[in-house]
Amino acid sequence: MKRESNQLLVSSIRRFVRADRTAQLRKIVRKAHPADLAHVYGSLTPGQRRKVLGVIEDARKIGGLLAELEPTILVDIIDGLGDEELMDILTAMPPDDSADVLQWVGAERKDRLLGQMSLEEQSEAESLMGYDPESAGGLMSTDFIALGQQTTAGEALRQLQEDAGEAEVIFYLYVVNEHGQLVGVTSIRELVRRRPETTLEEIMITEVIRVGVDTDQEEVARLVARYNLLALPVVEPNNRLVGIVTVDDIIDVIRSEATEDILKMAGIADRDASPYRSPVTSFRSRLPWMLPSFVAGALGVVVVSFYQDNLVRLIPLAALIPMFMGMAGNVGTQSSTIVTRWLAVGKLEFFQIGKVVARELAIGVASGLCYALLIGAFVYLYFDARPGLVDPVRFAATTGGALVASMGLAAALGAASPLVFDRFGLDPAMATGPFVTTTIDVLAIWVYLATAAALL
Amino acid sequence: MKRESNQLLVSSIRRFVRADRTAQLRKIVRKAHPADLAHVYGSLTPGQRRKVLGVIEDARKIGGLLAELEPTILVDIIDGLGDEELMDILTAMPPDDSADVLQWVGAERKDRLLGQMSLEEQSEAESLMGYDPESAGGLMSTDFIALGQQTTAGEALRQLQEDAGEAEVIFYLYVVNEHGQLVGVTSIRELVRRRPETTLEEIMITEVIRVGVDTDQEEVARLVARYNLLALPVVEPNNRLVGIVTVDDIIDVIRSEATEDILKMAGIADRDASPYRSPVTSFRSRLPWMLPSFVAGALGVVVVSFYQDNLVRLIPLAALIPMFMGMAGNVGTQSSTIVTRWLAVGKLEFFQIGKVVARELAIGVASGLCYALLIGAFVYLYFDARPGLVDPVRFAATTGGALVASMGLAAALGAASPLVFDRFGLDPAMATGPFVTTTIDVLAIWVYLATAAALL
Repeated sequence: MKRESNQLLVSSIRRFVRADRTAQLRKIVRKAHPADLAHVYGSLTPGQRRKVLGVIEDARKIGGLLAELEPTILVDIIDGLGDEELMDILTAMPPDDSADVLQWVGAERKDRLLGQMSLEEQSEAESLMGYDPESAGGLMSTDFIALGQQTTAGEALRQLQEDAGEAEVIFYLYVVNEHGQLVGVTSIRELVRRRPETTLEEIMITEVIRVGVDTDQEEVARLVARYNLLALPVVEPNNRLVGIVTVDDIIDVIRSEATEDILKMAGIADRDASPYRSPVTSFRSRLPWMLPSFVAGALGVVVVSFYQDNLVRLIPLAALIPMFMGMAGNVGTQSSTIVTRWLAVGKLEFFQIGKVVARELAIGVASGLCYALLIGAFVYLYFDARPGLVDPVRFAATTGGALVASMGLAAALGAASPLVFDRFGLDPAMATGPFVTTTIDVLAIWVYLATAAALL
Repeated sequence: MKRESNQLLVSSIRRFVRADRTAQLRKIVRKAHPADLAHVYGSLTPGQRRKVLGVIEDARKIGGLLAELEPTILVDIIDGLGDEELMDILTAMPPDDSADVLQWVGAERKDRLLGQMSLEEQSEAESLMGYDPESAGGLMSTDFIALGQQTTAGEALRQLQEDAGEAEVIFYLYVVNEHGQLVGVTSIRELVRRRPETTLEEIMITEVIRVGVDTDQEEVARLVARYNLLALPVVEPNNRLVGIVTVDDIIDVIRSEATEDILKMAGIADRDASPYRSPVTSFRSRLPWMLPSFVAGALGVVVVSFYQDNLVRLIPLAALIPMFMGMAGNVGTQSSTIVTRWLAVGKLEFFQIGKVVARELAIGVASGLCYALLIGAFVYLYFDARPGLVDPVRFAATTGGALVASMGLAAALGAASPLVFDRFGLDPAMATGPFVTTTIDVLAIWVYLATAAALL
């Protein structure tokens, strides 16, 4: 349903732009949600994007659109806007979103724009831009409601009626002391249920889950997910409340962290990898990630050449190399992927390494035994039908034994690597990527050829 | 910080259980959040879990714990509870959570428990259990606030003061007509800002984003993420409002969908794969996923044997097989992973297949050219130093050419497969798994050996 309606939106926009039917374009754009416009923007040409932008009159709607755009497209649009126009849009956006957009503006122009803001806006924008974009400070919104401890429920409700338009969310109300330090939390739901003269101090919960401005976004997401929160207060080291992170931003974090992990597992480091990036950029960022495969391949050449004499005598040995790489790689990837994911969602910790590696080793060896029977049978039948240098029974037995060994090894290594990477502060997702995969490949070939050399 | 505190919680629980210090155990358990207790439950033995459960007096807290547990542990705990005890806990839970727990109770016992409920509770539980757990109906809560169109803001606020304790969230207020059909939405924030005599009809927004009871959870998550919603109303086909899905449940959906995709890419179908499952179950579910590797390996044997005569004459050919598998597999995995992820997060649609495949083909060929130079140089140097049957220059050129071809092919196939899988209603994540990977492996070997046979 959604997909079709997006395709419809794209084709209508294209048609109206081509036919220069501005009134109809304006009508369809006005009806579309900014998030949907952002979504179809990637399918439009730069010229079409400009036309669409031109028919949106509401600066707030343009702001909503900019906040949802891919960085590459965003930069393009910013560059096409005049200073005054951009300034109007930035002013209409919530401060955290406008700070995010400002990050993509060139240094000189950014200074110029900041200079045009009021001193308060300027210092707010500058302090927001000062935080790491992947920290709680970088995610937070500064539009929140904080009330004093002595405020009564009745006063609080009155104050809400005046301020509500400004604040992003008002389901949680934070309570601060005279120094602006976070001392409690309550909800509008509590306010309406209490007698008007009750003070917030009497209503509030004092054990507030909070994060520091420097807390990593992954940790923020974990807290929001675990405790089912709608917003999380952000404090400075002295406990002064400076912002809130809302759950809608956390959804984006959870998605982009999952994307980052998935791409890393495939050997793509580039977290912004988007279909709208230039292939040249993608090519450059991906190229080095193939180096481990190359090194492993080169090591493979050395290993195979080392057993060259055996291979000349016994060419079927070479024929089974892909089988060993495939099977060991497969079980190793299963183990490393599952352990990496458990780590990412907080289901596993380092102290459990012994149990997990033993578990995966057992699975690897058991799978190895099953496939050893299959491969043994295949090798026996295939090479029995092609009589030559090789004794089919012995060859089948050797192959099967080597398979069990290399699959067990691959599973144990696959399970241990992410845990060890994590322990040493490296990203466990790297352990599922090319580095470990190719190590497993070379080890599998070596185990196989060494076993064959010893036994045949 | 969080990790350490969890390890501390586990070790304290273990110590107090071992030393039979019930008072201290009760104290630490009372202070712990149900979500944290659920998290550490996996690290406890069944005996320790029973002891912990025994010291929680508040049925609502036990309910909160059960709602967060892994299914395998949950079933174990349910089986250890008496009917009366379980009934008390279920009654204390929100209806959607208790319906989820009831799913894991055996059929006979479930009927017995349902028989003890009031007719209203029973029909609510039964209708909730009737929905697919992965649909909007399966996710939704039935605790929501719906008010009539003619209700005034003042009345609405008064009603909230009475009902607020029951409903899960009250930041959105849904407006229904006399047939219970959804006609609008407003927020408590609007209520407090308006004059008390305004009717909801005047305040409400009528374009409400809604889903049907059968809408798949992935689509629900996409809507919540795209439009930054805190809750989404769920309606029957006749537009009668029957529940709401809240954003905290959506976070779990987004995480578990990402996990499912990640595991599927690694050839693990089992979405409940958890560190607490028995290795035997995991072994059984993973074993068939290695079959494609086996089949590919067997095909590899056939392909290599077909070029047997060349290999005997030219053993370095065999030495380069792992290199070809590794490089082609690597670039193919990059392409299929990135396309799969774009599909999953809605950044790509089928009609863009031509552009995407061309893009990935270009990246594959460009990467192939770079590594062809490297491999050519390596082959030249390595085999020039080991004079034998092979002309190093010709061998290096052949190898390089074959590499460009197989990497380009792998990238194009990797990019096209998820799109084609998706088009035919198959899960695109499968296209990143063993099926496509092993197809690429065999193709790479074949391209390599066929090129070598033709040119050397």
